[in-house]
Amino acid sequence: MSSKLNVLLDPHTRRIDEIFSTADQARLHEVAEIQWGHDDPMPLAEAAAALATVDAVICAKWRYGDALYHAPKLRAILTVSGGFPLDFDYDYCFDRRIRVLSVAPAFGPQVAEMALGMAIAAARDLVGGDRAMRAGNEHYLHKGNIGNFSLYHQPVGFIGYGGLAKALQPLLTPFGCTIGVYDPWLGRGYLARQGVVPMDLDTLLTTSRFIFVLAVPSEENRALLSREKLALIPQDAVFVLISRAHVVDFDALTELVMAGRFRAAIDVFPQEPLDPMHPIRHAEHAILSAHRAGSVREQMWLLGEMVVDDLEAIALGMPPRRLQVAEPELVARYRSNSVTEFRP
Amino acid sequence: MSSKLNVLLDPHTRRIDEIFSTADQARLHEVAEIQWGHDDPMPLAEAAAALATVDAVICAKWRYGDALYHAPKLRAILTVSGGFPLDFDYDYCFDRRIRVLSVAPAFGPQVAEMALGMAIAAARDLVGGDRAMRAGNEHYLHKGNIGNFSLYHQPVGFIGYGGLAKALQPLLTPFGCTIGVYDPWLGRGYLARQGVVPMDLDTLLTTSRFIFVLAVPSEENRALLSREKLALIPQDAVFVLISRAHVVDFDALTELVMAGRFRAAIDVFPQEPLDPMHPIRHAEHAILSAHRAGSVREQMWLLGEMVVDDLEAIALGMPPRRLQVAEPELVARYRSNSVTEFRP
Amino acid sequence: MSSKLNVLLDPHTRRIDEIFSTADQARLHEVAEIQWGHDDPMPLAEAAAALATVDAVICAKWRYGDALYHAPKLRAILTVSGGFPLDFDYDYCFDRRIRVLSVAPAFGPQVAEMALGMAIAAARDLVGGDRAMRAGNEHYLHKGNIGNFSLYHQPVGFIGYGGLAKALQPLLTPFGCTIGVYDPWLGRGYLARQGVVPMDLDTLLTTSRFIFVLAVPSEENRALLSREKLALIPQDAVFVLISRAHVVDFDALTELVMAGRFRAAIDVFPQEPLDPMHPIRHAEHAILSAHRAGSVREQMWLLGEMVVDDLEAIALGMPPRRLQVAEPELVARYRSNSVTEFRP
Amino acid sequence: MSSKLNVLLDPHTRRIDEIFSTADQARLHEVAEIQWGHDDPMPLAEAAAALATVDAVICAKWRYGDALYHAPKLRAILTVSGGFPLDFDYDYCFDRRIRVLSVAPAFGPQVAEMALGMAIAAARDLVGGDRAMRAGNEHYLHKGNIGNFSLYHQPVGFIGYGGLAKALQPLLTPFGCTIGVYDPWLGRGYLARQGVVPMDLDTLLTTSRFIFVLAVPSEENRALLSREKLALIPQDAVFVLISRAHVVDFDALTELVMAGRFRAAIDVFPQEPLDPMHPIRHAEHAILSAHRAGSVREQMWLLGEMVVDDLEAIALGMPPRRLQVAEPELVARYRSNSVTEFRP
Repeated sequence: MSSKLNVLLDPHTRRIDEIFSTADQARLHEVAEIQWGHDDPMPLAEAAAALATVDAVICAKWRYGDALYHAPKLRAILTVSGGFPLDFDYDYCFDRRIRVLSVAPAFGPQVAEMALGMAIAAARDLVGGDRAMRAGNEHYLHKGNIGNFSLYHQPVGFIGYGGLAKALQPLLTPFGCTIGVYDPWLGRGYLARQGVVPMDLDTLLTTSRFIFVLAVPSEENRALLSREKLALIPQDAVFVLISRAHVVDFDALTELVMAGRFRAAIDVFPQEPLDPMHPIRHAEHAILSAHRAGSVREQMWLLGEMVVDDLEAIALGMPPRRLQVAEPELVARYRSNSVTEFRP
Repeated sequence: MSSKLNVLLDPHTRRIDEIFSTADQARLHEVAEIQWGHDDPMPLAEAAAALATVDAVICAKWRYGDALYHAPKLRAILTVSGGFPLDFDYDYCFDRRIRVLSVAPAFGPQVAEMALGMAIAAARDLVGGDRAMRAGNEHYLHKGNIGNFSLYHQPVGFIGYGGLAKALQPLLTPFGCTIGVYDPWLGRGYLARQGVVPMDLDTLLTTSRFIFVLAVPSEENRALLSREKLALIPQDAVFVLISRAHVVDFDALTELVMAGRFRAAIDVFPQEPLDPMHPIRHAEHAILSAHRAGSVREQMWLLGEMVVDDLEAIALGMPPRRLQVAEPELVARYRSNSVTEFRP
Repeated sequence: MSSKLNVLLDPHTRRIDEIFSTADQARLHEVAEIQWGHDDPMPLAEAAAALATVDAVICAKWRYGDALYHAPKLRAILTVSGGFPLDFDYDYCFDRRIRVLSVAPAFGPQVAEMALGMAIAAARDLVGGDRAMRAGNEHYLHKGNIGNFSLYHQPVGFIGYGGLAKALQPLLTPFGCTIGVYDPWLGRGYLARQGVVPMDLDTLLTTSRFIFVLAVPSEENRALLSREKLALIPQDAVFVLISRAHVVDFDALTELVMAGRFRAAIDVFPQEPLDPMHPIRHAEHAILSAHRAGSVREQMWLLGEMVVDDLEAIALGMPPRRLQVAEPELVARYRSNSVTEFRP
Repeated sequence: MSSKLNVLLDPHTRRIDEIFSTADQARLHEVAEIQWGHDDPMPLAEAAAALATVDAVICAKWRYGDALYHAPKLRAILTVSGGFPLDFDYDYCFDRRIRVLSVAPAFGPQVAEMALGMAIAAARDLVGGDRAMRAGNEHYLHKGNIGNFSLYHQPVGFIGYGGLAKALQPLLTPFGCTIGVYDPWLGRGYLARQGVVPMDLDTLLTTSRFIFVLAVPSEENRALLSREKLALIPQDAVFVLISRAHVVDFDALTELVMAGRFRAAIDVFPQEPLDPMHPIRHAEHAILSAHRAGSVREQMWLLGEMVVDDLEAIALGMPPRRLQVAEPELVARYRSNSVTEFRP
């Protein structure tokens, strides 16, 4: 039998309407008595007092300092920024069986959709073709399709097989692609069971017609895609950079794309806003987007849906099942990300 | 037991390498003795002589006139243009059990991919967003996504449920869309069995978030999407015109899109090449493409694959199963299309 | 625009309630004015008079003789027995563009379900295990499972790739089986495109763990599975005989199964009722069923659903799409089946 | 980078060949140095010494007592019995970040297959029909199918939505069933997201045509299906008891099935072996099996595959992803099961 939870809702810098649909706000109030519940940040002294009594807190990141140690009933911290908090005492939470949760999986579908859209747009030249129509120099039919290709039955490579990859994989299923994966954090057996082919990075880059960069940034993968690695990509490939520029030597990428070595679709940049003079802005073979894969309005309600679903689980005394749970093995490995730079 | 066929291969204006992969050329020679087999058009006198002996002919359209009546062994005419021949004596063929076949289904996948890519590109503003990056006036994150939306779980409307629709439907499956269909040629029972919802045109236009024009042109559907009908489309919808401009009042469409009434993605135009001064070329809310949905190089080999698969069937004395078979009920209904204007 | 059809409904030996659900009877009356419409057979003189005026006739088989030649408006003959009529003037129908249709595809799902159920029951020893529980000599857990096996990821062989095979294939998909097919009527290219592996009969029998006999009987496949062929089946295989005993040397099958050479599940017999003294009745390694794969009550309504869906198509002037259409290449090839011996 | 693990392999009462295929034994030796590695139980003193040095232990259940507290490098306990150990110091493991794992998910597929096979067998009367053939009193065709029905498009009810349910759900997908779920441990939101309909128990029992008992036994669900609840099941339903008899009032079930109130398929019994005189042994409308759903030979290798896959993860410093991980919320809730009575 479920009993009503006592929950502190303090989502700043998110807004309540941004992440909860009207229906999910109603469900939220069914499952929980809400403390605060405003878009403005709760004053810290008040928050500390509330934390002494609540079962769970919904917040963008942990900004309550040592109040963590004075929250005897706390069972879950549901963070809605998209990344896990940093410089945070996870060990205390693990020792006290406090679940630390992230809405990261909620971004999977919309980012995967963007990745698919950019991949098709690049292969079928949707952006350059539109530019040509506006300039009045378009070519029709076969002549307009020289060098273009299709996603059907192509070898695809995923760099990183986490939440984004798992959201993208079903979108590719109807295209009959084989999917190779490079992810040094995952065993070959596990990957094979997911219907993908584990492979080393060089093989992936050399043999894939579509390459998707889907890895979460970590200390280990900074500029993993060096100039040398990027040079392995074949002429008739599409390179989709959708998770983080951190993983790529962006200068090398820029040069190769400017030189027409392969096609690229890029949603993330080393600095945002991107330098107005950055040469990639004029690359003919690139599709550019201003970090827009993970912030589409209606899709943001998926964050709230997952939060309420997991509060229902917690009210039943059960483990959360929809948000990502911080795990001892992983918290130390994620790169020190500030919330603002994390996707979205 | 299969016996080798005697086949006239005269695909002009297609080229043999364009429609047959190397592997399928080998299969073709396994299943058939080939007459002619050149990209140039066979001289008509020679063709007439060959037709007197062959089991089947592969041609772009029927250009052999009365030789049809002097082809006693002929069992199949495999046309590779994309449309069925016009002003052709189908009744004679039906009476003689000669199968008249079209490669139209081979275009389904690549056109469906283009339709999906254009739909996502329009909803996620891939083209406008790229333009902004090039102009240096882009907005990042949420601010760059105002008005954008996602395909997931949206109501989708198909105008026409033929080969293109059947190729597009599986691509939408992982997005969890419900699909409404307006197709006056198909019964409600049949449509319901395909997993779509039959609906009248007004309901479809009023309630769909993504509208795909997939109908084959016919006398009955000229300008079916009149100004009045187009005005029913809601503000936050995407209109994808991918089969033929014939179905739309293009002037009305242009005005509505110029006025920002909804988003559009357009691959086909009333005249091609489009008038250099046509205002749609400057519509901010449109994605434009020069009739490029159905002529991607490697995908063209699907035509040849289907042709050889059906020759294998014919050699076994069986009905063809992959190409579209001309049927008495339908041949009279297709609009009088010249090959050049038919997709692709 | 659809106009109401004039339809003769004379389904004897089927009954109207047997093949039409209440909902489909209502739809039938929406699409057609019904002549006769009784379970009793229409007197032939009356039927001949009606045929002179109707657009279509729904009947078990053609029992109206030369009235066929005095039916000027007739566009379709929808037969509901399960097999196409024999000794019938198909050429006249082809010449006059009269569609001759069969409900055979409506039996696909229920027969496929039975085939799957029998296959799992044989491999997991459901019948023998139940017998042991009743006799009180059962073994539990591993000891009760010696020699049993699972369908997951097994090589499966289909003998015949028609309607039954196409209904069975999706049921096997979640088990991750690879499916080999022997069907001399179908080309290798076509089969490969269906996601199955074309193979010769010996390879199929030697390498499959589950063998399904799904072929329609024809002159060519009588006792195709001879003693010599059956002897190729490995010890740890399941042989499912579901389409027709005609395809098998039943004496040889009986001997091999009695000898424990492989497991069998058998729904069809050379004579029905089967000789009370037939030894197969006591085969320990067989599951036996009295030709019950295709006559489950509610599933029979699928016949009526398909009939009405195709009448809707005919009313729209379109080709039927759900029932099987008699094709010139095939009508001559089906074995001379009387309706009573045809499935179900 | 992965380093080789030091692993104690002491699977008694399982055997190494029983749970590891030859290929997985090779993988196991690639990822780990193996201590012991025999089917006989390791002498406890030796085991205690080994535990002081190993990274992980593979065992049926924990039989090493306080050696748990002298295992400084221990990161994972991979139990291969099928249930989690009882009377075990989970809190110590949670505090020390030692993962306690169970192979329970490995039984999902074979149990789901058995459940599907039994459900079809019951609805299509495969067992009774075979009995009739052996007795010589069978009925053919429709007459042999009176009262039988099909799984296609039926309302199905799952009691419990854990690993078995998740393995069964995809097997039902091609049958187009709607699935209702009663599981008081899971929130409505979570269930809705899995494509099932959360419902209360009475509604499920009243409206489902196929009812599958899939719940793990717990203190809370003992005899959940009381006489009163079982009486809600409609006449024309199939009741499949596959997880544990614990969940059912077995006397009431026996009486109702003996009285012909509904059909049943039963793989688990309150006492095993079942009393030789138990009346259910003679129930005409039941299919009986001696707890054989989860012990098919080749399927047992899935246990070993999952074990090795998770050892690969542990070697990479990552969380296990295939075996079930003991979670604080759940360990207290499972019923005190001894290994021998747990499935399989």
